[in-house]
Amino acid sequence: VLPRFFAPGTHIERGVVTLPSDESHHLTNVLRLAVGDEVAVFDGEGHEWRGRVASASRRAATIELGIAITPVSESSVHVTLGIGILKSDQMDAVVRDATALGVSAIMPIDSAHVAVPARVRESEAAIDRWRRIAIAAAKQSRRAVVPAIASTTPFSAAVEAAARSSIYLCLEPARAASAAGDANDRRPASAFVFVGPEGGWSDEEVAVATAHGARPLVLGPRTLRADLAPLVALSTLWTRWGW
Amino acid sequence: VLPRFFAPGTHIERGVVTLPSDESHHLTNVLRLAVGDEVAVFDGEGHEWRGRVASASRRAATIELGIAITPVSESSVHVTLGIGILKSDQMDAVVRDATALGVSAIMPIDSAHVAVPARVRESEAAIDRWRRIAIAAAKQSRRAVVPAIASTTPFSAAVEAAARSSIYLCLEPARAASAAGDANDRRPASAFVFVGPEGGWSDEEVAVATAHGARPLVLGPRTLRADLAPLVALSTLWTRWGW
Repeated sequence: VLPRFFAPGTHIERGVVTLPSDESHHLTNVLRLAVGDEVAVFDGEGHEWRGRVASASRRAATIELGIAITPVSESSVHVTLGIGILKSDQMDAVVRDATALGVSAIMPIDSAHVAVPARVRESEAAIDRWRRIAIAAAKQSRRAVVPAIASTTPFSAAVEAAARSSIYLCLEPARAASAAGDANDRRPASAFVFVGPEGGWSDEEVAVATAHGARPLVLGPRTLRADLAPLVALSTLWTRWGW
Repeated sequence: VLPRFFAPGTHIERGVVTLPSDESHHLTNVLRLAVGDEVAVFDGEGHEWRGRVASASRRAATIELGIAITPVSESSVHVTLGIGILKSDQMDAVVRDATALGVSAIMPIDSAHVAVPARVRESEAAIDRWRRIAIAAAKQSRRAVVPAIASTTPFSAAVEAAARSSIYLCLEPARAASAAGDANDRRPASAFVFVGPEGGWSDEEVAVATAHGARPLVLGPRTLRADLAPLVALSTLWTRWGW
């Protein structure tokens, strides 16, 4: 299996690309590759090439690109995961695993029951960390696409942003009775999947989402941890739609 | 929401039960409940009762049982997760999350590519820890059933033990081509779902399982971490079968 490196914005067909500094460090200091070693390079937008190390510097390693290769296939459904902000380690795990589960974008959602302080949930540092985690997870899962990480968005604005997509709202089992049954629809072109924070959605949020046509998504009768629910939701939808 | 306590082997209809010491500690010292407070008690075998604290001792709290209550429903499919042993923190997370995802039993599997040393994987201490994690996860997910944790079992013996059940073998995407397509069968009465360790299954293991009628279970085109794959596998099967 070829070691893979991420070179964003590689809008070229042939030639030599310079890796970002963290990728260069990984190539040179961690994997200790040398000039001539075979690698793969992906641009985060679905393109991937074979290549050979042209220079192994720890600041700016370069790769001479070879032939384009067919990357791991992406789903035909463009899924955005809208995730109520969780505490740091749970959020990191959700970003990592949702990337491996093929989402196109992740939108951190600020909602009534988010328990994380505003200075944390709106920090650019947090968004940057999630972007790095998404890159690492794309490498590990062998995706050539790195999901976009949106800025933190209030729930009502997120629902409006989702208006042209199919909207799925995860609901805890205790609320299933009030929901209009489980959705079992055809594969849409794009979908927003909203999964609440630890404290779930407020009644008002459920009403707003429902008014915007959200379908309830109930993941069985048991209570799922907030960091497990998004993974189950994505697995369920891919199983319905085909991966 | 009533605080829930686990009292194994509560084969009674009415009366007073004594909680195990760790549950007593939790009631008395952590939740600081007092005599007369309302609680729920479950026996780990699918029964649950309302009750009131009769004595709040940190070693042996007692509960006076009241009416039986209908617990969270269990799936009609009896699923055993056979999981190739992972490193400690990953294994803990899989036991926790598989319990929340409704498995009836978890069988740690020793297979060719398990990287954990024998003294760890066969230790009674590890099995005991997984049992405690399963109890905690049953409490959190509000199940009244605690999945059985089997002793560590060699893969070939596990496949033999599964002979009367439907057998599912998770395969990484690179092996999908050699597999006989994805299974899409009817709901069985019982199933064994085998998910490999970090290094996957050996060719010989795949052959043995296939000879025993195992169906391949391929979870999309991306490479999933060993601790994510079992959760996706269970979610996929419940989605096919109904939760």
